[in-house]
Parts: sequence; structure tokens; C-alpha cells
Amino acid sequence: MNPLQLLISQLHENAMWEEEQTLERNAFLTVEGKTDTNLYWIEEGSLRVFTISEHEEHTIRLGYQNNLITALDSFITGQPTKMYIQAIRKCKLLSISKKKFTEFIDRSDAYRSLWNNMLEGFIIEQMEREQDILINSPVERYKRVFARSPQLFQEIPLKYIASYLRMSPETLSRIKKS
Amino acid sequence: MNPLQLLISQLHENAMWEEEQTLERNAFLTVEGKTDTNLYWIEEGSLRVFTISEHEEHTIRLGYQNNLITALDSFITGQPTKMYIQAIRKCKLLSISKKKFTEFIDRSDAYRSLWNNMLEGFIIEQMEREQDILINSPVERYKRVFARSPQLFQEIPLKYIASYLRMSPETLSRIKKS
Repeated sequence: MNPLQLLISQLHENAMWEEEQTLERNAFLTVEGKTDTNLYWIEEGSLRVFTISEHEEHTIRLGYQNNLITALDSFITGQPTKMYIQAIRKCKLLSISKKKFTEFIDRSDAYRSLWNNMLEGFIIEQMEREQDILINSPVERYKRVFARSPQLFQEIPLKYIASYLRMSPETLSRIKKS
Repeated sequence: MNPLQLLISQLHENAMWEEEQTLERNAFLTVEGKTDTNLYWIEEGSLRVFTISEHEEHTIRLGYQNNLITALDSFITGQPTKMYIQAIRKCKLLSISKKKFTEFIDRSDAYRSLWNNMLEGFIIEQMEREQDILINSPVERYKRVFARSPQLFQEIPLKYIASYLRMSPETLSRIKKS
């Protein structure tokens, strides 16, 4: 098990989740300007995280079953988020507040070290993402993301993956076929 | 003092730095494919971090006096880095190995918590960077980075800032004047 799976299994075993909620398709979990410091565990469904700048949406993260999703900027800083998180499909989510999560982490060095590993994992993911965005060739961008996250293409409709990959749905469709 | 400054002052006070080195202008501190898990403190000079893809250099970080620089992917994973780190100006650097740094951090909860805060800080920086790259307007990209890091424009030659901002030096020059 990787650090994420280990930590989540501990949250389950210790019955730490505070709320279960259902989110209808297209409903927003959080919006820009809201302070949302919860961590959410996706039991079912899928979501996208996007920002809006220059009247344009930029899909920056995609989440599906058995993954964590959070307004990470708000979670870390306790300030309002710059992100929107929206259900792509009907979702069942478990949540835990930062306060309760932090208390849990502080119970043992092992938990703290797991959380540390997860933060490091986020950093590595973001470095990969930075490279993804900087690469000009749409084919290369597709190949990198497919190699890293093949499941994404099972779980998420093409148009959102296209937005994440900074290309039109038509281009992505053509690349996938070739 | 922020977490970085606090942690660095502790490394100084406890004489934890292992090596001091001078790096001539244009010399490489590390190159793609090398495993380099040191943390470097910039006493003097400035450096740039870049990657090469599709035969093109992408400047992804810039470092100057009184800042930390590291091949962060290699530092975290212990694997070869994908980055090049090169001196823009003659540098004086202090370094500490990951092994020694980790031992130091593990001495106290306070240090561990500082390191945790620094990792969180890296994540926030990378989220800002992701937004920087996604924004189409060169003027907006310039404004965001100038607001966050005005000192960058004192320390780093324009052509590297232009590369970091994904625009030509001529465009950056024109934007700065207007």
C-alpha cells in the first residue's frame, strides 16, 4: 500500500470520517472564494477541479473513486480557495475537517510520517503536471498522462480530460485513435 | 520569520552544513539523470533550474541569495533528477545531504513541523506556478509573478525571467516599460 492508501485505511479503521454526503451530477462541492478545509474521500463518482481566469475554465485536477479530493490551497492555508470542485457524475463522499484530521495525524509519529510522504507525493505530482503543461506537443502530453494514469480514461469523460490536457476534445479523440 | 528562515537559522546555529562550494558562472550544479539529494543554500549568486523537452529549455525555477535550491524531484524520491541546475552568476553554496538533513529534522517535533510547513509552502508555490503557466495573457503572467517576487527582477537577468514566464525577452521588455 502507498502512503495515501495506508493513511486512508487508518482513517476508516478509526472511524474518523465525520460526514457522508451525496453530490448530484454538476453540483459544486466548493467554489472560488469559499474557505473549505475538509478532506474528501470519493466513495463513488468523479469530480473535476478547475479555476477560472480570463473568463476561461482550466481543469487542473480530476478525481474518481477511491481517491482523495480537496481544495488543497484552502486546506493548507486556511484561506479562501481559488478553485471550483464540481461533480462530473453523482458522487458519494466522506469528509473529515482539517482540525480533526490534524488531531488524528498528531496521534503518532507513524501517521505524521505518512502525511509527510503524502505531501511529498503531491509535490512530485505537481512537478509532473508542470512538465505536462509546458510540453508543446499534444501527442506527448497525452502519452505522459496516459502512462501515469490510464484509469483516468476509464473514469472521466473525454471533454474534461481534453481540458486537463489543454487540447480540444476533437484533438484528443484523434490522438487516441491513432 | 517564515518556516524556511527558521529552519535555515537552525541549520546555521547547529553547524549542520557539510560543504561550502563555489560555482563559476554557467557551471552546472546538477544535470538530468544525476541523483542529487542535497539541499543547497545560496550564500551568493543566482541559479536557474530548467528541464529540456522537445529540444527546448523550460526554465522552471530561479534561485538567488538567501534561498534554498535543490533538485526537488531527486531529493524527494532518491531517483535521478529530470532537471538541470546552472549558475547564472558566480555562486557560493552551502550544502547538506538528505541523510544528514533528515537526521536533523528527526531531532525534534518542532523541526519536523517546520519541514512539514515548508513542504506545504512548496505545494502552494507550485499551485501558483501552475496558474501562471495556464494564463494566456503575457501581461497577466508578468503581473502575477512581479507581485509575488519583485526581488526576482533585481537578481535575475531578463532573458531567464522571460523563459520562466514563457515569453520572449522582447515581449517582457516591452511589458515592463508599459
